[in-house]
Amino acid sequence: MNALSGAILVLSGPSGAGKSSIIAKIIDHIGPTYFSISTTTRPIRAGEENGIHYHFVSQEEFKREIEQELFLEYALVHGNYYGTSLSPVKQALKEGKLVIFDIDVQGHDAVQNRLGDITTSVFITTPSLEELKRRLHNRSTDSEEIINKRLEMAKREVQRISEYDYLVVNDDIEKASDILVSIAKAARMKIPTLQINEFVQHWEAQS
Amino acid sequence: MNALSGAILVLSGPSGAGKSSIIAKIIDHIGPTYFSISTTTRPIRAGEENGIHYHFVSQEEFKREIEQELFLEYALVHGNYYGTSLSPVKQALKEGKLVIFDIDVQGHDAVQNRLGDITTSVFITTPSLEELKRRLHNRSTDSEEIINKRLEMAKREVQRISEYDYLVVNDDIEKASDILVSIAKAARMKIPTLQINEFVQHWEAQS
Repeated sequence: MNALSGAILVLSGPSGAGKSSIIAKIIDHIGPTYFSISTTTRPIRAGEENGIHYHFVSQEEFKREIEQELFLEYALVHGNYYGTSLSPVKQALKEGKLVIFDIDVQGHDAVQNRLGDITTSVFITTPSLEELKRRLHNRSTDSEEIINKRLEMAKREVQRISEYDYLVVNDDIEKASDILVSIAKAARMKIPTLQINEFVQHWEAQS
Repeated sequence: MNALSGAILVLSGPSGAGKSSIIAKIIDHIGPTYFSISTTTRPIRAGEENGIHYHFVSQEEFKREIEQELFLEYALVHGNYYGTSLSPVKQALKEGKLVIFDIDVQGHDAVQNRLGDITTSVFITTPSLEELKRRLHNRSTDSEEIINKRLEMAKREVQRISEYDYLVVNDDIEKASDILVSIAKAARMKIPTLQINEFVQHWEAQS
């Protein structure tokens, strides 16, 4: 269908908005995809696996990769580095895959600046701040302090929704996943400006 | 899902690319939609119905409506006027419908300028100019002269693909329709900048 290969789908939104379930559904329903795994210097937690939840590296290693410009984007959050390595993303794009990012508004900003041409972005949120509070308390994985930090971050992030292409309010996980699968399919058809000329030449060539 | 109501989907592309079949499929699969019917001063043809294929009006009537600024966009093509009336579009948007336009690149330009905020646009084409030629000859509804005009117009139009959000190459009508249904679903989630502030206020209000 699409002669042009590889596209990026950025998902942002507060922790608790249901991103992980939605991403699982996208990966199930459309292929081939590459879900970008972040690299971090924060300590590994119980239940986490290196290479699945994050690539866990030392501060020294991370700083060396920054110097070598190996990151598509990175940020220092509460003393720990978080970043996205460029090389697996490039490889996946070359293979025509849809690269999915679960990153914050800062990360989205960086991806837009470098690869905006092939990027579709979605902000996913709960119907209200109240509902986000309720969900974070219900899943009871976080301390009160972490929950408050998450809520403050959410308040700051929703102020930047207008930087995204789409807004999806997750008040029903089935409906929200269905919409995201549609957006992901559409994302593959996004027109990379650089390749338009090539397409047009090819289109006319055979006549 | 989407608190924000109404969105626009513009489909452009050469006659013969399969737009009509695709639009029928979109209307079947997602609702509620409003398919915008153009107004024209060209004579009605055998098999055409007023209010279905076009709204047929006189030159005087059309010019009066231009003066009254009743058109979202209009153009003079080979001596005949073609245009889109603004008022039914506004009404449909108010009712939260997805408004679908089958218009050329000029029309798309006008819609982008006035309602770009809520507009998603797709250029639909055949895999090649050669294939377009073949399809136009096969459906044998047009004279050689008309076919040549269509091919010339197609060559000019593909030069402007980069003005569109998505490119869909229709080499399989089922797959192309499926993609368009996805794009149409996604189009409803597009973020109208003006309404973001309202959403954010409402989102925080209950806490």
